Amino acid sequence: MSNPIKSSPVNPDSPLTYKVVFQPSGRSGRVKAGISLLDAARNLGVGIESICGGAGTCGKCQVIIEEGRFSKHDLNSSPAHASPPSEDEQAICSKRGLTAGVRLSCMAYVQGDLLVTVPEEAQANRQIVRKAATERVIPVDPIIRMVLLTIDPPVLGDRSDQERILELLESRFGLSGAAFELSALKALPAALREGQGEISLTIWNDQVVIRVQPGLHDSPLGLAVDIGSTSLAAYLCDLHTGALLATASAMNPQVTYGDDIMSRISYSVEIPNGRERLHRAVIHAISELGAQAAAQVNAVADDIVDCVLVGNSVMHHLALGLDPAQLGHLPFAPVAGGPVDVAARDLGLKFNPGARVHVLPLEAGYVGADNVGVILAEEPHKQDEIVLIVDVGTNGEILLGNRERLLCTSSPTGPAFEGAQITHGMRAAPGAIERVRIDPHTMEVNIKVIGQEPWSRELPDEQVQARGICGSGILEAVAELFVAGLVLPSGKFNPKLNHPRLIRGPKGQPAFVLATAEQSATGSPILLTQGDVRSVQLAKAALYVGAQLLMKERGVQQVDRIALAGAFGSLIDRQRAMIIGMIPDCPLDRVTAVGNAAGDGARIALLNKSRRVEAAQVARWTEHITSPLETEFQEQFVAAIPFPHASHPFPNVRRMIAERLDAAKAGEPYSKGEAENDK
Amino acid sequence: MSNPIKSSPVNPDSPLTYKVVFQPSGRSGRVKAGISLLDAARNLGVGIESICGGAGTCGKCQVIIEEGRFSKHDLNSSPAHASPPSEDEQAICSKRGLTAGVRLSCMAYVQGDLLVTVPEEAQANRQIVRKAATERVIPVDPIIRMVLLTIDPPVLGDRSDQERILELLESRFGLSGAAFELSALKALPAALREGQGEISLTIWNDQVVIRVQPGLHDSPLGLAVDIGSTSLAAYLCDLHTGALLATASAMNPQVTYGDDIMSRISYSVEIPNGRERLHRAVIHAISELGAQAAAQVNAVADDIVDCVLVGNSVMHHLALGLDPAQLGHLPFAPVAGGPVDVAARDLGLKFNPGARVHVLPLEAGYVGADNVGVILAEEPHKQDEIVLIVDVGTNGEILLGNRERLLCTSSPTGPAFEGAQITHGMRAAPGAIERVRIDPHTMEVNIKVIGQEPWSRELPDEQVQARGICGSGILEAVAELFVAGLVLPSGKFNPKLNHPRLIRGPKGQPAFVLATAEQSATGSPILLTQGDVRSVQLAKAALYVGAQLLMKERGVQQVDRIALAGAFGSLIDRQRAMIIGMIPDCPLDRVTAVGNAAGDGARIALLNKSRRVEAAQVARWTEHITSPLETEFQEQFVAAIPFPHASHPFPNVRRMIAERLDAAKAGEPYSKGEAENDK
Repeated sequence: MSNPIKSSPVNPDSPLTYKVVFQPSGRSGRVKAGISLLDAARNLGVGIESICGGAGTCGKCQVIIEEGRFSKHDLNSSPAHASPPSEDEQAICSKRGLTAGVRLSCMAYVQGDLLVTVPEEAQANRQIVRKAATERVIPVDPIIRMVLLTIDPPVLGDRSDQERILELLESRFGLSGAAFELSALKALPAALREGQGEISLTIWNDQVVIRVQPGLHDSPLGLAVDIGSTSLAAYLCDLHTGALLATASAMNPQVTYGDDIMSRISYSVEIPNGRERLHRAVIHAISELGAQAAAQVNAVADDIVDCVLVGNSVMHHLALGLDPAQLGHLPFAPVAGGPVDVAARDLGLKFNPGARVHVLPLEAGYVGADNVGVILAEEPHKQDEIVLIVDVGTNGEILLGNRERLLCTSSPTGPAFEGAQITHGMRAAPGAIERVRIDPHTMEVNIKVIGQEPWSRELPDEQVQARGICGSGILEAVAELFVAGLVLPSGKFNPKLNHPRLIRGPKGQPAFVLATAEQSATGSPILLTQGDVRSVQLAKAALYVGAQLLMKERGVQQVDRIALAGAFGSLIDRQRAMIIGMIPDCPLDRVTAVGNAAGDGARIALLNKSRRVEAAQVARWTEHITSPLETEFQEQFVAAIPFPHASHPFPNVRRMIAERLDAAKAGEPYSKGEAENDK
Repeated sequence: MSNPIKSSPVNPDSPLTYKVVFQPSGRSGRVKAGISLLDAARNLGVGIESICGGAGTCGKCQVIIEEGRFSKHDLNSSPAHASPPSEDEQAICSKRGLTAGVRLSCMAYVQGDLLVTVPEEAQANRQIVRKAATERVIPVDPIIRMVLLTIDPPVLGDRSDQERILELLESRFGLSGAAFELSALKALPAALREGQGEISLTIWNDQVVIRVQPGLHDSPLGLAVDIGSTSLAAYLCDLHTGALLATASAMNPQVTYGDDIMSRISYSVEIPNGRERLHRAVIHAISELGAQAAAQVNAVADDIVDCVLVGNSVMHHLALGLDPAQLGHLPFAPVAGGPVDVAARDLGLKFNPGARVHVLPLEAGYVGADNVGVILAEEPHKQDEIVLIVDVGTNGEILLGNRERLLCTSSPTGPAFEGAQITHGMRAAPGAIERVRIDPHTMEVNIKVIGQEPWSRELPDEQVQARGICGSGILEAVAELFVAGLVLPSGKFNPKLNHPRLIRGPKGQPAFVLATAEQSATGSPILLTQGDVRSVQLAKAALYVGAQLLMKERGVQQVDRIALAGAFGSLIDRQRAMIIGMIPDCPLDRVTAVGNAAGDGARIALLNKSRRVEAAQVARWTEHITSPLETEFQEQFVAAIPFPHASHPFPNVRRMIAERLDAAKAGEPYSKGEAENDK
């Protein structure tokens, strides 16, 4: 058999021990003379990277050695405190292009006291940091592992390549009962030939060899995908380092078949092959996103070996090809709500033929795997504070609670905040107005367009090149129009104001010009119509009522913290979200925009297998609260449609509006809060 | 949750015990008053069928109850010794159409001494009997199990259907960590609807729900397939009873691309897409055989949920789509030699979308999974006698040994014995001459054609309707020609004989008329040419040399027993196989024809999961002996080409030939040995 574990040049039965200190962890202890530094590190609980199982072939377990003087034995020890580099070690260091002076810990044996530095790239316990409401550290421990093996050419009487590899996986890596994916088995002979016996195996869950590649490979790619009703967001990660390598987004192509989840269900149920068509459309789009993201790092979709999907319950069912009919009527029972593991090829995804897909569980009928992603990212179930998490999407999902009790509900927000069903709405792409400021005194309009660093007033009009308005821009435009008095608390444009930008839109309805024809890339002005303002009102009212429902059930009058999540292009403007009354009144410094928490949660599950288990548990533990009776809901909903005004108990909102007006009066373009928010 | 386990009408804490005797097993013992007969049976180790886990819904656990008088408590017990049938029980008995008076053991509770008869259809420990060399009993314990569940319609707040089912599988059947195949999940809502909540699950290896059907189903179908180089044989089994339901066979369509394994390897390696083409051809043919076999029992290929494949190493690799190139040259190392489990759909098989395939392991380079099947069927590794097993096929495989040491080798027999490369050869199908007798004195020829019960001399010529000659017929024809002196020991037609049937064939070579133009369905005579005789000589010499090789290695001069296996249409004629020198000399009563042992072994692995484990072990344990050096082999091979004659040490063959001649002289159409062999 190839690669016998190299034995020490020092007698392994020697009674001598030496002190070894590992940096930067600072762990230290006495180890037997003659053992390898890799074994010493393992004995002392120091993680050093090695994908060849200490066989001396991968060159990953590099360390920098300094001699130490910690032991009394030290005077008796051999002249060097570590064995000198063997020819084999020098050959591997040269083959892998390692820096001179670096040692391989599997081939350096302890012969005296040692101070050993493990460089960052060789440290096995990697982690990523999620920077959101609170900084969270996520250990990188994916369900995928890589293994490097060197297999000697067969001789007469040898077992098959498959058997010899499985034996090595058991003897050297402790992986018993592993098996090959058929596609990996098919690729095996060519990989052995091309790699001259050296092959890298991609192994799923310590059980299945899903890919075989010639030579050394140690950066498997994974894709986390948030399937929104309107938009898809994909995150390509290096499963070894945990690094986010690329992102890609697209409209959900199912939009062609219906704007919201109810219309998707109808299409799926009523149109022949409707379900299959919706399934294939989203799967095709996810494959495309994977290919696009991979192309950004000079890789191909075939390199994607693991994938995590999240989405609301209907998106979840359609992505899996499951009948969503039951989700369309009481009691909204999903076909599958627990986690699902499936081969990517069985979904029709064009990733590696051996690639796996993990679909996070659902919480309940309408509270989907995307919301489980939000929980993974925001961890309300681990906190003392009562947090309200509003995930803004076409199907809004809301969480409220803490480690004691966590409630969830869903809210049919509609696609306004994703730029759909809005006159000049578009998704967050170059040309989209993403930020809007209207001076309440001068009424000057200042916009920021995706793809342009400066705001419009710093640019000649013809350079603004606005093409439409995306979700975050729509929210800001409505809030600014309201603060400026151009829109009344009822949502109507103020008929008493005579502003040059207040015009009649294409269908004769009142509209506001956000970008003039000169600022527009289309030659026509970009408008926000009365109907658009109404869409925003309906959306924000739905979210507000959902939050109220949970607060009532949880018996709280106010919350300690609010997190605003959503797959917007840019972060949602928390101040303006409060001004329009999307969320309950709360001190602004207790409101955080956390970006696409669902997508972040998918990424966390992609990078850490134990978080998948946690997701399944917390999904079952979270309580789903359904909306109250039709009439009661209707009353609350209607009451939530106007914007917060004097007759509403919104002290924080009133203060923010006052500050905004004062700042404008003083000639400052932004209030203090805004400036901070814009960071 | 539906179907709570029915509780006993008797106080379960009662200290009373009663004696219960189960027939026909005769097992008996005392059980607590009030427990169900199903639980009583389990406590006493009596297997009673139940696929609903004792929920009282499947109606499988039927028993016949007679009161007993075994206990002194009996006088004090309630008037009836078993609880009377409840309304629920009566309803199920009626729904499942059970005989009146039959009780369901899960709903009949012990209230006194009882004598319980378990009818055959309710006995859980089923077995099949293989009637071959020795009768062997194979317990039916497939990797597939069926479970019947009744799921209540969901109510608000219920978990998903998937989760509720997985919970029931864990709580009622002890199957923890099970998961759904995606195709089963897709079928779930419709099955629940159609079955009004009652569904049957097909579960693979207690782990994966691979199929969901509405209502009660308990006879899953499995297909065992022997993939020969020339012919395919498929066996459709009821995985519940173990019964062989149907068989189907076909030519291996790969024959178009090359007659033997070497030419298949060449095609695969040299022709673009060659490997894929060979793979698809055989997979398509196996799908067809599955559909044909299923149609014979009014089922469809979609009902096939498990499949076991065997074949020689090259057939094995091509069926899996693996590159067979390495099998074409030293050291003949297979890509995959261990057992392979794969989804049928991943091979392209058109069975149930959730169906599984198990491929038996290989023994070595050229000794394939078919030979592992032969071991499973013949069990040489469990015997004291030294047995020689010759599996006659295009790639012949030979086993020799016993429980101490088992050797194997392969032998390039060529396709003669499968009717290929023979002038009028055909596979064993209606019209094929399968038996041949030539009176050595009168030289009268008597043939038997598949599809006709009588021999030819009992029929008017025009009713014989011969179309060609299959493998068993070819072997007999050559042996008979030799015994009759029409063919010399060298294999040449005897030039000194002037027989009206000895003619010149189409290419001018000597030929013998087996069926006259009148007896032929084609209008032309069916011939056996000099070349055909030579093909048989080469084939039998290859097998003989292989057997000699193993005997030399094992250090034995003779064997205790010989088993002749092969996928012939009818059993191979052991006497004539000895006469032509295909096998070493041996008393005829120690030679047995065992039919398609490889196919039988596949069937055994299909019906019993532990035999799959045994197959993997014995495949590793069997020693592969490779042919000796080219020149030595060549010498032995050339020496084995003539038929056994005076100068050869074949006492048994000489006796058989003498008997055959004596019998013919006495006017008996068959010798004693033949008559026995023909049974």
